[in-house]
Order: sequence, then structure tokens, then C-alpha cells
Amino acid sequence: MSGTLVVGQSGGSTATLSNTLAGVLEAALQSDAVDRIYGMCNGIEGLLQERFVDLTNASTQLRDALRRTPSAALGSCRYGLQETDAERALDVLKAHDVRYFIYIGGNGSALTVQAVDRWAQESGHDLHAVAVPKTIDNDLWGTDHTPGYGSAARFAALAALDGGSDSWALRTHDQVKILETFGRNTGWVTAATALAKREEADPPHLIFVPERPLTQERFLQEVQAAFDRFGYVHVAVCEGLRRPDGELLFASDRAVDRDAFGRGQLGGVSTLLAELVADELDLKSRTDKPGTMQRACLSLASSVDLEEAYLVGKAAVKAAVSGDTGKMITLERTPGPEYAVTTGLIDVSDVAGKERPLPDSYLNEAGNHVTSAFLDYVRPLIGAQLPEYVRLSLPTVSKLI
Amino acid sequence: MSGTLVVGQSGGSTATLSNTLAGVLEAALQSDAVDRIYGMCNGIEGLLQERFVDLTNASTQLRDALRRTPSAALGSCRYGLQETDAERALDVLKAHDVRYFIYIGGNGSALTVQAVDRWAQESGHDLHAVAVPKTIDNDLWGTDHTPGYGSAARFAALAALDGGSDSWALRTHDQVKILETFGRNTGWVTAATALAKREEADPPHLIFVPERPLTQERFLQEVQAAFDRFGYVHVAVCEGLRRPDGELLFASDRAVDRDAFGRGQLGGVSTLLAELVADELDLKSRTDKPGTMQRACLSLASSVDLEEAYLVGKAAVKAAVSGDTGKMITLERTPGPEYAVTTGLIDVSDVAGKERPLPDSYLNEAGNHVTSAFLDYVRPLIGAQLPEYVRLSLPTVSKLI
Repeated sequence: MSGTLVVGQSGGSTATLSNTLAGVLEAALQSDAVDRIYGMCNGIEGLLQERFVDLTNASTQLRDALRRTPSAALGSCRYGLQETDAERALDVLKAHDVRYFIYIGGNGSALTVQAVDRWAQESGHDLHAVAVPKTIDNDLWGTDHTPGYGSAARFAALAALDGGSDSWALRTHDQVKILETFGRNTGWVTAATALAKREEADPPHLIFVPERPLTQERFLQEVQAAFDRFGYVHVAVCEGLRRPDGELLFASDRAVDRDAFGRGQLGGVSTLLAELVADELDLKSRTDKPGTMQRACLSLASSVDLEEAYLVGKAAVKAAVSGDTGKMITLERTPGPEYAVTTGLIDVSDVAGKERPLPDSYLNEAGNHVTSAFLDYVRPLIGAQLPEYVRLSLPTVSKLI
Repeated sequence: MSGTLVVGQSGGSTATLSNTLAGVLEAALQSDAVDRIYGMCNGIEGLLQERFVDLTNASTQLRDALRRTPSAALGSCRYGLQETDAERALDVLKAHDVRYFIYIGGNGSALTVQAVDRWAQESGHDLHAVAVPKTIDNDLWGTDHTPGYGSAARFAALAALDGGSDSWALRTHDQVKILETFGRNTGWVTAATALAKREEADPPHLIFVPERPLTQERFLQEVQAAFDRFGYVHVAVCEGLRRPDGELLFASDRAVDRDAFGRGQLGGVSTLLAELVADELDLKSRTDKPGTMQRACLSLASSVDLEEAYLVGKAAVKAAVSGDTGKMITLERTPGPEYAVTTGLIDVSDVAGKERPLPDSYLNEAGNHVTSAFLDYVRPLIGAQLPEYVRLSLPTVSKLI
């Protein structure tokens, strides 16, 4: 069967998500089953609005440029597909003779693939729909990790390393720094800040993630204890920190801040915690909140992630033209001392709308840092190892007076 | 005259401030006038506490490692010298036969050099005290720019480019993004975000700096107008934004948040403005506030800044051993089409405690963006030009239905 292949990008940015698009184009251009290649502008919104970019003649230069482009070069969306969209979606798919539907996204986007696949089957339209994993959150089941995560992990680790070196240098003045990373319900990105720590006294001194509920009281106790021990404190926190009752420590309750899935916008827990530290512990406290740069900074991307993001794009086209549908590409880590991955396939229904938290074995007992098992897991994903910095701190000159 | 050279680092971090230390060591090791080289731990605090690291035998490896280290490898401080410190400072300088005092910092640190120089002269202790410019704020008089600024400008431009690409990709969902950069009283770093803009519709759409006072009403009008025009808005704001009455839009009023100079901690104006946008314009609004990473991220440093930071360190030692005192090293841009600089000297009294704002000619009439004169000024300072990204946005496929 031959026909049109459509490809879309959905959800939050990653540094490497357009590498995946490049991989899709590369494999699609080489496939006899693909007559035309259309890119959806702003994901499924573009399909429903019939806004497509014709990529059938995508040049080598364009594919190379995509590999040097972060975020969604096609534009992205956060659109929750409704059953009422089915007729329109099918009309567009049929009008353009779309036989291959490749959708790059996270667990929300997997729901889109699931719906489109089901609608096509129910209407008798022969369509092969394949999801390609993409999320800095690393919260998808069935894959060792998600493309996008390695680069966000690298960024978070560098934010902790560089912000930590700033904290160390100014430790007689700036007493507490709180670095806030992304992560709605899971602490994968926050946990990666631990890579910045080489010695016990190094930042980050504390790491708090949603998988370990936190009270304000315990947060303050932990900060004070770390301050007493190290003389300054660098804390990494996840935007999605939760209280023991399951409620977020901070989320906007404005209607305008709710996304298509009714979830309040996060970002701001560090401000709340810094105010708490200043008010309750009388320690000078400041926040670093890199925000969207952490998911879109290609200049600091992981070389491993760049390559794998490209690989999963190619694998998705191969799976679709080989007859697979309703599947998501996975990355499987090859056992052994050397890091290597192969791609696999999983039913999209095993992924769609589900979230994978950090496993217990990756978090220490105190719930304030990670374990070496997590470091072993994450280290190969960030590409080149982090730089090492010099500190000239011990007074090595004898006091004369 | 020969004797001990002491070197210290002071004030906020820069990505290249330890390159300056490497330059100081390089020149000091080559000078016959320098018998011993001591590094002050945490700047002038270390001198007063007689906490020194002996760098007399600093190896090539150490100097190379310093060139790959951001922030103050010796530790920094924010200490305002008092007249009551004079006796102690002189005792320590005399006890260690200190004849050369090299201090790397901004306009606050220049006050330290001025005081130490005066105390030495008044007491008849032969000392050559030279300030080396270092601040991401670029707010020193008498120098074309300050080491540290080029790297912070590069970081800010990348934060706007990458955060802007994320905004563009999700423009149907995330409507307004506010990027907050450093800058207590001057908008030099914020202004550099303009380098991310290549075309009229590119982020950042608006740039607000302290040199142009701002009301909440005008901010909202500008955001709404940009939204109506571009369909989404990326705004860069300086943490030190001021109202027409001269008051800061946001500063902490906590006692613990005041620095040695009585100034309240900044950081937070973006949160205030984002809340305003959500409440008053009903637009979804989020913030990026990279914080201390923007001044300490060596991985994204400007190659030009790295080299110049090293250069001024060497020049400071040469000036001191040649008999200069009470001076600061400057960078002078050579006229002509090719960018080049030489070093010069200025009286530290012309710099100490003073601030250089963005000149009028660098800001547009509307007070919401920069001019091409500023872009010409800043472009050579960031080293390699910014990457160019691909956007596949025009619907190029004919609608069939």
C-alpha cells in the first residue's frame, strides 16, 4: 500500500524533537510506500484545519538544518482530541490519501494516535498510525527513556553545576539557592541535577521530587540542617512538588492558566519556598527557574539524545510502512557495561495517558536525594560528561598575624 | 620593588572571571617583581581574615583548569569595606610584604581598590593596587565593555532564541512568555536578547529595561498590541524595571534580603507581570528566569569574552609592576570595520560606585526595543554568531476540503 505520510509534533518542546522530524523525513524519502510527505502545522490542530507543509521534496539541506533546530519546527499544540473531531479528521485523511500517520509526542499525544488509529479502523480507512516518543519528562512506560530527556537532564545538571559554582563562590553572602526544574508529576529532570555533585559537600545538597511528598516544615528542617553542615545550601526542586495529601505545593488556579486537560499551570514553587526560607529561617534565599530554555536549548543538548531522537524518527516510518499501527517506538537499553540502545515497539494503549514515576530504587531513604542506581541510569543519557571546575578554597598560607 | 602579589575576586559571578585569574597568574609568574602570589579566599574578606591560597607555584595544569572554570575559583564576596577595616587590612598587607594588590570585580569592588590604595598611601606602605573589570552588568564607565558581559549577553540571547522557539512552536497554547534577566539598574543584559530577533515577527517582541520607566498600564497595552499583531508574545524584561517615580517594580523588602549596600534582593518582576497579564488581559502567561546560570554558564560563554577576560588579568599585573596604582584596566575598541580591542587604564575614582546606563541611542523611541546601533555594539562581544533555526510554518499544501 502506498500513499501520503503525515507527520506532526505535539506537546512541550524538547531540544531534539526536530531531529526526530529529520529522521522521519529521511526514512520516508527512502520508502517506496510513501508518495507524499506532509507536515502538520501545529500538530493535530493542523490536520483538523488542513494546514500542511509539503515536505515531499525535503532537501538534504533542510534535513540537516532540522538537526540543528530545537523545539517543533512544524509548530506544536496541546489539543485534546474529542470524539466530535473524528469525522473531520477522517475526511482530511481520506482527501489527502493519508496512509501513514506519524505523531511525535508524549503520553497526551499517544492518546491522539490511539484515537486516530481507532477511527480509521472503524471507518475502514487503511491507516498505519505510529507514535514517536518525545518528552523531557521521561515519564512514558515501556521505553528505557524518552528522546528529549537526555538533553533536559544535561541542562538541569549544568544549571546545578554552574548555579552551584556561583553559590559556592558567594557562600558568605547568598545562603540558600533554589533551582526549580520542570516535571508536572515526576521528578526525572530534577533528579538529574545530582550529576553535578562529585563530593559530599557539592551542590545540589538537597533534591526534592513529587514522588516524595513534602511538608513546608520538613523542607525548612532539611534546609537548616544542610546549612548547618555546609555553610550554604543549593536545593533542586521539581515544579510539581506535592504535599502528603497529594495536593500541589503550587499551581495557578486561574481559568486562563488551565491547559486542554484542565491542569493548572505550574512554575512558581521555588518562589514560595524561597519566601518561606527567608521568613522562617532568616536566611537569604534566591531562585533560579530556567523555564522553557531547559527544554529547548540545543546548544547544550546531549549528543546521545540528538542521535537517538533521529533514530526513533526513522524507526517509526519503518514500522508504519511495514504494517504496524497503534504502536509507539521504544528505546531498549542493551544489557552490559557499554551503553547502547535498540528500538522496539509497544502498543500505544500501554502508554497513552499513563505516567511513569521515578522508581523507589532511584530515590534515597530520606527522600532528599537520588541513589547511585539512578546516577548509573542517567549518566550515559547526557552525552559528554559534565565539565570539572577548580576550587581554590583551603587557606594554604600560614597566618602571620 | 619586589614583594607579594595578592589577587581576589569579588561580587557576582561571571562565566569568565576565573579566566582573568588565570591571566593574573600567568603574568605574575613571569614577573621578576613578584616573589609570591597569594589568592584571597572570598575576596577582601579573605584578606581581612588572612585566608590565602598560595599560588606561587601554580602549575600550567592549574592555569588551564582555571580557564575552564566559571565563577570565582577563589570564592567571592559582597563586602563593603569600612574605615574601621583599615588597620587590619594594612597589618595583613605588611605582614605578608604585599606590594601588588589585584582585585577583580565591578563598581563595588573598585571602591575596595580605592580604599586599599588610599590606606596604603596614607600609611606609607608602598603598594600598587589595580582593579580588573568584571561584571555581567556592563555598567562600568571608562571601558568599552566589561569582561563577563559578552558571555551573559550570549546567554540572554540564547535564552530568548530557544525560549522564543518554544513560544513560537506552542503559540496556539502559550500566549505570553516573560523572560527575566539580571540588571539591577541597567538593561545591558536584557537588551542583548534582541540578538535573537532576525525578522520583525521573531521573539523577543518587546524589551523593557530600567532606563525607560514603565507603568503597569503601558506594559499591558504593549503586550496586547504585540499579541494582536503576532498572535503570541515573547517579552524580555530586566529584573530592575522601574516605575516613572523611580521606584522598582519589584524588590524584596525583607531585612535578610538586603545586601551589604542596603539594596533589596531583586528577581521576581516577571512573576508579577505574568500575573498581571493573566488577570488583566486573560492571556496565558509564563515566565523564564534563568537566574544565576546566566552569569555562570561557561558552556555557553563567548569566545571573545573568554579571551578578553584573560587579557585584562595579564594587563593588570603588568600595570601594577610598572608602577601604576589606583587604576582600573579598560577595554578600548579599535575603530574600524574589524572588531579588535586593546587595554588601557583609568583612575579607579572615575569608576568606583558609579553606574553606566544604556545610552539613549541604544534604545528605540517607543522604549520597547533596542536600536541597530546597540546591535552593532553588542554583536562582536558574544563570540560565534547565534545559530539559525528552521521554521516550517506556511501551509504549502492546497486545501482539498
